Amino acid sequence: VAKRPTLRQAKGLVLALDLAGAAVAAQEGVGAAMANRLDAFGVLVIAFVAALGGGIARDVLIGQTPPRALRDWRYPATALVAGAAAFAFGQWVQAIPQAALITLDAAALGLLAVAGAEKSLDQGLSWLAAILVGGVTGVGGGVMRDMLLDKIPAVLTRDIYATAALAGAATMIVARRLGVPNVWAAILGAVLCFALRMVAVNLGWQLPRAV
Amino acid sequence: VAKRPTLRQAKGLVLALDLAGAAVAAQEGVGAAMANRLDAFGVLVIAFVAALGGGIARDVLIGQTPPRALRDWRYPATALVAGAAAFAFGQWVQAIPQAALITLDAAALGLLAVAGAEKSLDQGLSWLAAILVGGVTGVGGGVMRDMLLDKIPAVLTRDIYATAALAGAATMIVARRLGVPNVWAAILGAVLCFALRMVAVNLGWQLPRAV
Amino acid sequence: VAKRPTLRQAKGLVLALDLAGAAVAAQEGVGAAMANRLDAFGVLVIAFVAALGGGIARDVLIGQTPPRALRDWRYPATALVAGAAAFAFGQWVQAIPQAALITLDAAALGLLAVAGAEKSLDQGLSWLAAILVGGVTGVGGGVMRDMLLDKIPAVLTRDIYATAALAGAATMIVARRLGVPNVWAAILGAVLCFALRMVAVNLGWQLPRAV
Repeated sequence: VAKRPTLRQAKGLVLALDLAGAAVAAQEGVGAAMANRLDAFGVLVIAFVAALGGGIARDVLIGQTPPRALRDWRYPATALVAGAAAFAFGQWVQAIPQAALITLDAAALGLLAVAGAEKSLDQGLSWLAAILVGGVTGVGGGVMRDMLLDKIPAVLTRDIYATAALAGAATMIVARRLGVPNVWAAILGAVLCFALRMVAVNLGWQLPRAV
Repeated sequence: VAKRPTLRQAKGLVLALDLAGAAVAAQEGVGAAMANRLDAFGVLVIAFVAALGGGIARDVLIGQTPPRALRDWRYPATALVAGAAAFAFGQWVQAIPQAALITLDAAALGLLAVAGAEKSLDQGLSWLAAILVGGVTGVGGGVMRDMLLDKIPAVLTRDIYATAALAGAATMIVARRLGVPNVWAAILGAVLCFALRMVAVNLGWQLPRAV
Repeated sequence: VAKRPTLRQAKGLVLALDLAGAAVAAQEGVGAAMANRLDAFGVLVIAFVAALGGGIARDVLIGQTPPRALRDWRYPATALVAGAAAFAFGQWVQAIPQAALITLDAAALGLLAVAGAEKSLDQGLSWLAAILVGGVTGVGGGVMRDMLLDKIPAVLTRDIYATAALAGAATMIVARRLGVPNVWAAILGAVLCFALRMVAVNLGWQLPRAV
């Protein structure tokens, strides 16, 4: 019996988007690291952690060790090259339109959240845990980056970011339950995450806060 | 040959106390998160981490992945429902007598410490490591909560809390060595941890500090 | 077919240096913990984490759980005894010449980095990931210590420390590729890390920083 295809099986496209998202996250991390007066090594650590921390946390949590980011050299290579480039050519990176980076980041967020949730289901996690691990995959790198820089993680205090990741993962799982083929459920979840994130950025949406 | 029963095999009671302890920890986490101006998502993350971080760390350390908190949906559901309730009905939660929360928390601490140490022994950890993992199970969630909120973990600076967890786990292991049946060793350890914590709270005991 | 010997197979010497390095790291951790007004329990936690956190992170990342530091009681015992001694006899520890501690620490750094990279290769990690895990093994404990004490990890902001660890791991891997027997490749890497660290300390070398 052939298994239904999943988003992760569209290997080439997913890998390209995954690495592009890692590069964007690495570049963001470099900016934060330089603002905190880290040295060249520290900058590369933050780039690495921001780019790959979420996926590594996912793989450790679901018991898939060594994590993929440590088995496939293209992941650390992408993070470190993007980090080194952002460190060395900071002013050129600043010339990249912010909107382009936010768009690529949102696309990568959708992919990470949905693929993280899929991988979790494969490993026997409950549907609720799969959504949560999808969220961890999407935002874990940014959380570790902020913790290393001695800050409360930005994702906990503002913006619709993690919420978009969770909504995408949840949409994928609900769609599967409703009988949508796996690959379409994944695309639906990733697109919803992407759209929610982009709308929230452009309209300045925020989650409620205690008074 | 029938194996001797352990505390973890008294499934129903243990699960109920485990979930109650998670709910108390989630509620405490929400209070700390709201004081730090987190948004609704951040509050739920802190609730989740405070409630389940210790058990997740235990399972990752002893190689039991995916962690139980991610395989059994009742754990995240309890943490998130308790967190959401504390966020939405903060003033009602404040009406719960502090003494009741402290008592429940101490009971859960004893259970977590002893069950964590038992699980570690089953996985081939040394007796010293089993005590330490019992302690991690008991206090890991609070440590992660404080690290995310950019504070030195409270458990490292004051009160007899982690010490009670370690004492409970150690008592259980010593009692087993002395030939006490496993289930009674576990009860002895959990009760000792609970009693030590309650006495310390009520008498204001503190550990020594360097001068 | 006999496998080539590796540095880790020179068991006795490696264990002794490993434990000595753990004791030095524990003692350093105690100093930092006492400066932050931690209580006796907190001091021991920092000693434990500083001494063994890097090796535990390595084993979790490469899927060798439970970590060796939790299976072999000599590791936690060394960390806790060294930590307790440094807490109780602080003024005597201060009498140990700083140069002796730095030298022992540099030797342990070389050993940890090279052995961590070797263990990673054995587990099927890519060469790039093996270098990175070697670095994590060397500096992970110090990073966790600083994060618990609510500081940006020192290793990210100054000194040639992590860089020496990475250079040692990389040297070992390049030497292997060039056909150097495993044991000599390991010694070469560890010695290079040690020498680079000692020269950097004595000449006050720093990595470049963004302006």
